[in-house]
Amino acid sequence: MQRRATLKDVAEAAGVHLSTVSRALNPNTAHLITPAVVEKVRAVSRRLDYRPNAAATSLRTNRTRTVGVVVPDITNPVFPPIIRGIEDGLAVRGYLAILANTDGGLDREEEVAGILRSRGVDGLILASVQREDAAISRISAEGVPVVTVNRRVDDPAVSSVVNDEEEGIRRLLEHLAGLGHKAVANIAGPQTLSTGAERYRAFKKHRKKFGLDPSPGLVAFAAGFNEHQGEAGMDELIAARGRFTAVVCSNDRLAIGAIAALRRHGLDCPGDISVTGYNDMPLVDRLSPPLTTIRIEQYNVGVAAAEVLVEMIESPADRRGPKHLVRPVKLVVRASTAPPRRA
Amino acid sequence: MQRRATLKDVAEAAGVHLSTVSRALNPNTAHLITPAVVEKVRAVSRRLDYRPNAAATSLRTNRTRTVGVVVPDITNPVFPPIIRGIEDGLAVRGYLAILANTDGGLDREEEVAGILRSRGVDGLILASVQREDAAISRISAEGVPVVTVNRRVDDPAVSSVVNDEEEGIRRLLEHLAGLGHKAVANIAGPQTLSTGAERYRAFKKHRKKFGLDPSPGLVAFAAGFNEHQGEAGMDELIAARGRFTAVVCSNDRLAIGAIAALRRHGLDCPGDISVTGYNDMPLVDRLSPPLTTIRIEQYNVGVAAAEVLVEMIESPADRRGPKHLVRPVKLVVRASTAPPRRA
Repeated sequence: MQRRATLKDVAEAAGVHLSTVSRALNPNTAHLITPAVVEKVRAVSRRLDYRPNAAATSLRTNRTRTVGVVVPDITNPVFPPIIRGIEDGLAVRGYLAILANTDGGLDREEEVAGILRSRGVDGLILASVQREDAAISRISAEGVPVVTVNRRVDDPAVSSVVNDEEEGIRRLLEHLAGLGHKAVANIAGPQTLSTGAERYRAFKKHRKKFGLDPSPGLVAFAAGFNEHQGEAGMDELIAARGRFTAVVCSNDRLAIGAIAALRRHGLDCPGDISVTGYNDMPLVDRLSPPLTTIRIEQYNVGVAAAEVLVEMIESPADRRGPKHLVRPVKLVVRASTAPPRRA
Repeated sequence: MQRRATLKDVAEAAGVHLSTVSRALNPNTAHLITPAVVEKVRAVSRRLDYRPNAAATSLRTNRTRTVGVVVPDITNPVFPPIIRGIEDGLAVRGYLAILANTDGGLDREEEVAGILRSRGVDGLILASVQREDAAISRISAEGVPVVTVNRRVDDPAVSSVVNDEEEGIRRLLEHLAGLGHKAVANIAGPQTLSTGAERYRAFKKHRKKFGLDPSPGLVAFAAGFNEHQGEAGMDELIAARGRFTAVVCSNDRLAIGAIAALRRHGLDCPGDISVTGYNDMPLVDRLSPPLTTIRIEQYNVGVAAAEVLVEMIESPADRRGPKHLVRPVKLVVRASTAPPRRA
């Protein structure tokens, strides 16, 4: 096998200093060099087929046209439509999806990512990330194309396709305030996940803007996005004896649990307490009561993540700047919300 | 590449006749030969790395430890738990799942199977098969390890892991007859699928055994397993003006549609008409009313399919006789069934 071109080879062939090559090839620093030199360095780099990162190069030249798709748990109803979008988005570009579940653990996620990389996937789409995810930042920094979907990591260097969390919560609060609610509680999601943290932040911000009761006792934090945690959250809100007539839940599964807890306490939804969800996952329109929620573009979010990833895979490593897409959301009003009872 | 050892090579090296080698290596005929000769032939066969089937050999020696998993549509809630079982069953054996959707078309299924084979998967797990599926029989006959899951093809040469459809329908009818129902209608599933056909056959058989009204007007056939077809089926049953107090639906999604249609006609479930589903897919316990249904072991069915497939992949081709597993089912009684109103 031919020796790969090095940074030094490019510098010598272009007749410039090493650091000039490095700057010229980095989109973030190219403006420091005169355009003519940048053009020359890039031309030489292309001619010599210089690739800045060996790991990324190997991935690109030995392409398997498979992509690792990592989710916490495919049986969580929010994920299948996203996965379907990813698969369809990959398929039209000639890529296949290898699917793996992590059950939400960071260690397991790193292990799964390692297994997938050792199988030679061309890139990773991760629906399982936590906000602080050192392994993912490291993998991404090593030049492996990575996109997070539905959630994102705090590190802005890792590309993401997510939903407009702030706008979703804003519309729910606008809807509830419009119905006449003055005190709206919140069952917030896990703050280690971008979805949980961003929805909670938006709740605090817009609760204030709509002039709703700002009492801290009106918030319960769920340790996970599931029905059980929703029940526990509602129990906690009721036990705290705060006065509220509506509860914004950080996702649909929390809302389903919250409504079950209300029923257990002899309270009616929406008669006594209005409840809202987030995601509009399958079947929530058929629950009792049908759930008022925010519809995220699950399928389109998946397609977009596939597009962003394939673009990264097929671009030279030095042009793979992170990309962040935020997809629009929609308020869906159903029977779980109603005006508050007259006091 | 070295020439592969043939049956003749083994016969010559062992100093026995061709037919003796063939018999000695086949577990079904080895008893016809003296044990010492069987042992000798097997030892020579191992030493020469003789493999009976070239296609299978290529698959085995070039193993990618990936398996193609083909489903009609991952967003159909019955599939995620099955897929999760498949993935977990594969993972513990060191295999990964490549997932693909077909949207139910036979042409698309053949295309997807072809794409997966060209990527060198070691075998296929198919949740998407129709009863008559020439492409799958052909692929299986070519020595590619194939297992169908949840459904099966009519061709008994293709391995399968399915649920006990007859017992499921029997228990539903036993439950309804026990509540006092005398006339039970059926929204049957697509007869091109083993699930639809076997559940309908069981309905006819056990309706008779429990002494229920055998009128042919009490059956509507759905063209697909979805809510829309369930609504259409219930409309058809009501339009036919047959008298019935309960409806057995071939799956949960048909039942969800059937209950929506009842509501549209001003009828209450279970007050006026009891309705049952099949599968116990996620969230049907939270519908209004919660659905009486048959719980299939979705996850375990997936794990079992992975086990059967890996066993086939790792066995010599001549020992890959088809395997058919039928998993037990369970009746889950909820609020969608009740005794019929007194006439």
